[in-house]
Amino acid sequence: MKETDVAILGGLSGISAGISCRRHYPDKKVILIRKEGTILVPCGIPYIYGTVGGPENNVIPDGLLERNGIELLKGEAVDVDREKKLVTLKDGETVKYDKLVFATGSGPMVPPIPGIDKKNVFPVKKEFDYLSDLMKQLDNARDLIIIGGGFIGMEFADECRKGRDINITVVEALPHCLQMAMDNEFCDEAQARLEETGVKVLVNEKVEVILGDEAVTGVKLASGKELKADMIILGIGAVPHTELAEKSGLELGFRNTIKVDRFMRTYTDPDIYACGDCAEKVSFFDGRPTGVMLASIVTSEARIVGANLYSPTHQNCGAISVFSTVINDRAFGVAGVTERFVKQTETKYVITEAEAPDTHPGGMPDSTLTKVVLIFTKDTATLIGGAISGGKPVGEMVNVLSACIMHHMTADDIVKFQMGTHPALTSSPIMYPIVNAACKAVIPLKGKSSIV
Amino acid sequence: MKETDVAILGGLSGISAGISCRRHYPDKKVILIRKEGTILVPCGIPYIYGTVGGPENNVIPDGLLERNGIELLKGEAVDVDREKKLVTLKDGETVKYDKLVFATGSGPMVPPIPGIDKKNVFPVKKEFDYLSDLMKQLDNARDLIIIGGGFIGMEFADECRKGRDINITVVEALPHCLQMAMDNEFCDEAQARLEETGVKVLVNEKVEVILGDEAVTGVKLASGKELKADMIILGIGAVPHTELAEKSGLELGFRNTIKVDRFMRTYTDPDIYACGDCAEKVSFFDGRPTGVMLASIVTSEARIVGANLYSPTHQNCGAISVFSTVINDRAFGVAGVTERFVKQTETKYVITEAEAPDTHPGGMPDSTLTKVVLIFTKDTATLIGGAISGGKPVGEMVNVLSACIMHHMTADDIVKFQMGTHPALTSSPIMYPIVNAACKAVIPLKGKSSIV
Repeated sequence: MKETDVAILGGLSGISAGISCRRHYPDKKVILIRKEGTILVPCGIPYIYGTVGGPENNVIPDGLLERNGIELLKGEAVDVDREKKLVTLKDGETVKYDKLVFATGSGPMVPPIPGIDKKNVFPVKKEFDYLSDLMKQLDNARDLIIIGGGFIGMEFADECRKGRDINITVVEALPHCLQMAMDNEFCDEAQARLEETGVKVLVNEKVEVILGDEAVTGVKLASGKELKADMIILGIGAVPHTELAEKSGLELGFRNTIKVDRFMRTYTDPDIYACGDCAEKVSFFDGRPTGVMLASIVTSEARIVGANLYSPTHQNCGAISVFSTVINDRAFGVAGVTERFVKQTETKYVITEAEAPDTHPGGMPDSTLTKVVLIFTKDTATLIGGAISGGKPVGEMVNVLSACIMHHMTADDIVKFQMGTHPALTSSPIMYPIVNAACKAVIPLKGKSSIV
Repeated sequence: MKETDVAILGGLSGISAGISCRRHYPDKKVILIRKEGTILVPCGIPYIYGTVGGPENNVIPDGLLERNGIELLKGEAVDVDREKKLVTLKDGETVKYDKLVFATGSGPMVPPIPGIDKKNVFPVKKEFDYLSDLMKQLDNARDLIIIGGGFIGMEFADECRKGRDINITVVEALPHCLQMAMDNEFCDEAQARLEETGVKVLVNEKVEVILGDEAVTGVKLASGKELKADMIILGIGAVPHTELAEKSGLELGFRNTIKVDRFMRTYTDPDIYACGDCAEKVSFFDGRPTGVMLASIVTSEARIVGANLYSPTHQNCGAISVFSTVINDRAFGVAGVTERFVKQTETKYVITEAEAPDTHPGGMPDSTLTKVVLIFTKDTATLIGGAISGGKPVGEMVNVLSACIMHHMTADDIVKFQMGTHPALTSSPIMYPIVNAACKAVIPLKGKSSIV
C-alpha cells in the first residue's frame, strides 16, 4: 500500500491540479494515478493529422510532473473506499489518501446510429495508439465523412485535407456548423472558409445509417441521399468519465457529471474534489448547469482545486466558455454568451460591432481585417459575451474579453481602456475594435442617464 | 464668426475626442481646428522609412471626421478669449464655443547640443512634408546617427536599415536602450536583436558636439570619440504644445503640460478640457505626475473627454503606460510599472516569470518563445506591472495585462482566469505564461494566510 496526502485520478486537468497543489502546499505529497501511458494535448489532436504530423508530436511531457515533485503511478483506479480513504488499482495496488481529486476527463460520445460499430468508424478517443491507427487509416482513405460540425469536426476536416488527395464531407444536424459556440454570422464565415478548401459541408442533415459489411462503405442521410465513404470520424461531443465516481457513491448531476460546489469540492465528500470534463459546470451567466467542455475551463478548475485542497477559499465563477479555433487560416474566438443563447433568456441586451485591420497604417504587410462583436446587458452595460474573427492575435484578444467578463466590466470600463497598439501588432489606437465596439454600447445608457 | 457647441484644437486625440463627443452627445455640433493639412498615425512614423514606404501610406483619413459629423476647420488657433468663449485663428476667422478641448499634442524635444541646427539634423516632427524631406535625405545618407535609444530611436534604426546600404549608430546616454520603459533584461534583449541587424548601439554615451560646416559631417562624443555622420535623427523625447494654453491663462503643471482633474477638465476653466500629450498625466500607481506620452493613454483620455463634456462622470485612472514595439521581428510589450521604478518606491513587491512557446504542441510551425514577467505588490498581490517579449500575440497579451492592472486584479484573480488556448494561436493551456507567472506569485501570500 502506498500512502499520500493527495491522490489525483486523471490526465490533463490532473497535471494542472497537481502542480497547483504542490505550489500552494509544497509539504504535501501528491500522487497522480492514470491508466494512459502518454497524455496528449487534447486541443492538439486534430493537428496530429495535418500540421504536426503524428501523435508523437502532440504529447504532454511527464517531465512536468517530475519537476513539480509529483509521483506518477500508472494504472487504472477501479475502486474508491471513501471510509478507509483508499483507492484500489486494477493490478491490486492500493493508495491511501487524505484528499482525492477526480480529474477523469471525458471520452467521445458514440451515438446509436445503426452501423456505428463498423470498421473504419472512429470516435475521437484521446489514446496514443488509437490515434496512430486513425492516422494509418486516414492515409489510405479516399472518402472521409466527418459526423458533427463542431470544433472537433471542423478542425479535423481542415487538417485532414492538408497534403492528402481525399474527399471530405462534414455532416451537421443543426442549421449551422459551430452553432453551439458561435452566432450565425461567424458560423457562416467559418463554413465558407472551410468550403474554400474543397471540403463539403452539409447542414440540417443527419446520418441515419452507416452502410457497409464489415467496414464502412457509405452513409444514408435522413434526406434519403447516400454518400460514399471509406472512413468516418465522429465529432459530436463528449461524455464524462464518471463511472468510478458513481460507483464510489459521489452524487452526479447534469449529464452525469460529478456534482461540485463553488470550491470544486464534491457535494458528497468534503475530502474529494473534482475538476475538468468530469465535473459539473455552471454558467458564469446565471449559475445554471452547462454541458460545455473546454481546456480554458478545465485548467482554471484544476488550479482552483489545487489551491483549495487544504483551505477552500477560491471560488469558481462559472464557465465563461472561452475558446478559439482556426479554419483555413482564419481565427475565430468566443468568450461568454452568444446572442443565440441570450435571446432565449429574459435578459435584455445590446449587441455592437467594430471592424479594423490588425495592423496599421493601411500599408503594413500581413494585415488581417478583424471583426469584433460584443454583447452587453442593456440595463447595466455589463459585458456578457463577445466573438472575434481575424488573424493570429484573435487568440489573445478573446482573452482580453475573458478577463473583462470575469470581472463584470461594463462598456464604460472598456471605453476607458488603455490599450497598447503598434503598427505591426495591433489595430490603430483610434480603430482598436474591442474599445470601439464598447463605445457603441454606451449611447443608450447615456441617453437614459442624462435625463437628470 | 463660426459658432459651435464644441471646439477641439488638435490632431489625433482631437479626432478621438470628437468622435466620442458625437457618440455621447449626438445633438452637439463639433468643430475640429487644426493647422496640419494631413494627420499622420504617430506610431507609424518610423515605419514610413522601411515597411510602409512613405508618409502617404501613414495617414489618418479625414473620412473618419465626416462619417462622425465633425466639421474640420484648417487653420492655426492663435488666441483663446475665455471670457467671450472665442477662438481666433491666424487668418482672422473666429469660432465661438460652448466647450473647448485642447488636444494640441507634442513636438520633438531639441536638446541644446552645439551644432544641433546644422543641415541634415532631423528632430522627428509629425509633419507630412517634413517627413518626406527626411525620407529624401535618408535615401542619400551613408552614415546615420540616431541620438536617443528610446522607442522612436530604436524603431527608426530598425526601419531605416531595411533595404538601405547605410551605417547606423544609436547613441544612448543611459546605461540601457529603452531604459525608461522596460527592465534591463528586456532592454538587453531588444538591443541584442537590433545589433544582429548590423546597427551599432552605444550606451552610456552622449553626443557633445555636432560637427560640420553648413551640414552635419559627424559628432563628437563625451568619451572623446568622433563618429562620421551625414545625417542625424533625434529621438530623445517630446515636449507638449501648450504655448496657446498658457497664453489663454490655463494653469500648467508638470513639464509644462496643462493641469487637468480626473475628469480631464482643466484646473482653470470648467468649460475647457485637455487630453493627449499636451495634458498633464499622473501615474495609475501613485497618482504622481509622469512624463510618459503614449497612444494608449492619448486615446483613452480623448474618449474620456468626449464623454465628460456635458456630464463629467468618467474618471481617468491614471497612466498605465501600456505599449508595445517590434525590434528585428521580436515583439516587446510593457504595461504598468517596471521593477526599476518600483524599487525606488517604498512598495514591497514580488516579481515572477514564466516562459512558453506561443503555439502548442511543440511541433506547430511559427512558434515563438514568449517570456512574461509580472510584478505584484507583496502585501495584496495586486498586479502593478508586467513585461512580455515574443511574437505577434505580445501586442494583445499586454492588453490583457492592461485590463488586469486597471481593475486591480490580484494574482489569485489571474490564477483563476479562463484563458482560451489554441494550438496555432496561443501557448498550451497548462503553460499559458500570464497565468503561470501569476501562479508563482501566490505562494508567499498563501504561506502567510495559512498560519491561522
